[in-house]
Amino acid sequence: MKPIRSFSDLCAHLARQGRRYRLAVVCGADDSTAQAVMRAVDSGFAEAYFVGRTAEVKQQACVAAAPTEWVHYVDADTDEEAAAAAVRMVGKGEADVLMKGLIHTDTLLRAVLHKEWGILPRGRVLTHIAVAQMESYHKLLFFTDAAVIPYPTQEQRLQQVEYLAQMLHAFGIEEPRLSLIHCAETVSPKFPHTEGYGEICRRAAAGEWGRLVVDGPLDLRTSCDPLTLRVKGIHSPVGGDADALVLPDLETGNLLYKALPLFAAARVAGMLQGTLAPVVLPSRGDSADAKYDSLALATINCR
Amino acid sequence: MKPIRSFSDLCAHLARQGRRYRLAVVCGADDSTAQAVMRAVDSGFAEAYFVGRTAEVKQQACVAAAPTEWVHYVDADTDEEAAAAAVRMVGKGEADVLMKGLIHTDTLLRAVLHKEWGILPRGRVLTHIAVAQMESYHKLLFFTDAAVIPYPTQEQRLQQVEYLAQMLHAFGIEEPRLSLIHCAETVSPKFPHTEGYGEICRRAAAGEWGRLVVDGPLDLRTSCDPLTLRVKGIHSPVGGDADALVLPDLETGNLLYKALPLFAAARVAGMLQGTLAPVVLPSRGDSADAKYDSLALATINCR
Repeated sequence: MKPIRSFSDLCAHLARQGRRYRLAVVCGADDSTAQAVMRAVDSGFAEAYFVGRTAEVKQQACVAAAPTEWVHYVDADTDEEAAAAAVRMVGKGEADVLMKGLIHTDTLLRAVLHKEWGILPRGRVLTHIAVAQMESYHKLLFFTDAAVIPYPTQEQRLQQVEYLAQMLHAFGIEEPRLSLIHCAETVSPKFPHTEGYGEICRRAAAGEWGRLVVDGPLDLRTSCDPLTLRVKGIHSPVGGDADALVLPDLETGNLLYKALPLFAAARVAGMLQGTLAPVVLPSRGDSADAKYDSLALATINCR
Repeated sequence: MKPIRSFSDLCAHLARQGRRYRLAVVCGADDSTAQAVMRAVDSGFAEAYFVGRTAEVKQQACVAAAPTEWVHYVDADTDEEAAAAAVRMVGKGEADVLMKGLIHTDTLLRAVLHKEWGILPRGRVLTHIAVAQMESYHKLLFFTDAAVIPYPTQEQRLQQVEYLAQMLHAFGIEEPRLSLIHCAETVSPKFPHTEGYGEICRRAAAGEWGRLVVDGPLDLRTSCDPLTLRVKGIHSPVGGDADALVLPDLETGNLLYKALPLFAAARVAGMLQGTLAPVVLPSRGDSADAKYDSLALATINCR
């Protein structure tokens, strides 16, 4: 497969596959969610299950205008009931992607993590992966974690690397380059997370996650700018050409996630990884375009 | 005074003052340092003291081409001796700004922090302040700390706010707006630094740092984008129009410092605050322009 190098590559790839993924959309009666979902249906890669107060969904112009066999409705009166119903659909294998509409993140996550019928398998780590497309970088840039784990433990970081590797391979990148980010290029006991970076590099080199080049600690410039790497006289197999960044913690991940659209006109998408099915968890303020991008990102990560 | 809104405003302001600040330049024989210093001399706001192997400095084209009474030489054979000599000049009041050339940061900082003749007064916090100018933001954006304190304590953060307030006032911003950054807008025990933010807001409101509006926790978007603030229904006195950001820790500060030039074509400058005189501490890879900007930033912070 040819590598996917942009959001438009991604959507073209999904449309070409000829498979419709089943989306369980929780409380999707708001404009931007309904529009994003209908666009995915129209693009040919989605079949939508709107779960919630479906009478409101049917009133949305984009839904009412073009009735299709690929849209279904599951009624639920409260947000809690809608979240539970959608999560159970994923649990029973009746949906491939879970998507949040106009519902509190906490309410949806409580259902996702429910002890009896939740969809996070025991021992799996729930974490966030984002991807940015911007003119100032020559390819997509993936990073983790902008939304879930405050200060990842070494175990959690190892799973973040595994999820990233899976996603990069799903994007058709044969030998992805992954940077473990720190403010400098040296391990320091003042920054305990850097002390585990060596182990991650060794396990990657041993082939634990398939073809994958990992290096770190590296800072953002030595990760993404070959010139800086040369000026600093550093040798790194990532070569200043990173496909993905593992960030130290949630504060750094979130800062990058917010800085890139705000200051670098980046288009960003995000999703949760670790659950039985990918979870799309947009922000209230996201546009229909942003929600569509995140939906596409989640869909390509379906098994 | 009219507020300084760009690097060119800053240099024009310094030139207009008609005062020459004495720069102690440690090991400044490399191209970019010598060029930055000579440009400051030519602009009329600097008098340079090159400390180190000065024969090499004199061979630099920009120095040899235009001999001037405003350039002086202090010979020292080793980097350690040069650092000690320059730091002692600051300690004796013979220099107003200390600038690092081609010397290891550690070597210079050891002299700055020397127990007997160092220039960090007891009880003062050494911290880094940066400023970015970019097309995607309507004014200069200051932030701290990109280079010195790994995880600031509440005491250290209070001094960071004090230094930022002094710098913003020096830039002629009458009532600067300062955001205390976090990934969300709520205080959380999972992120202990957020628990001190309320105290900082209260002390600012009580006038401890002069005219200064402080709010937090706010994320980067609610700090710098009024539209996001409105969509999220948040009321904040910063109003999505921050002049400065206090970042949670060194990893976040450093990430922003590196992301903005790399992805948002920002022009950034930085300096150390807390010492008897401002310290300019450029990276090896910085251009002459970047070093000049940092020099100007430090100079306006001289007493």
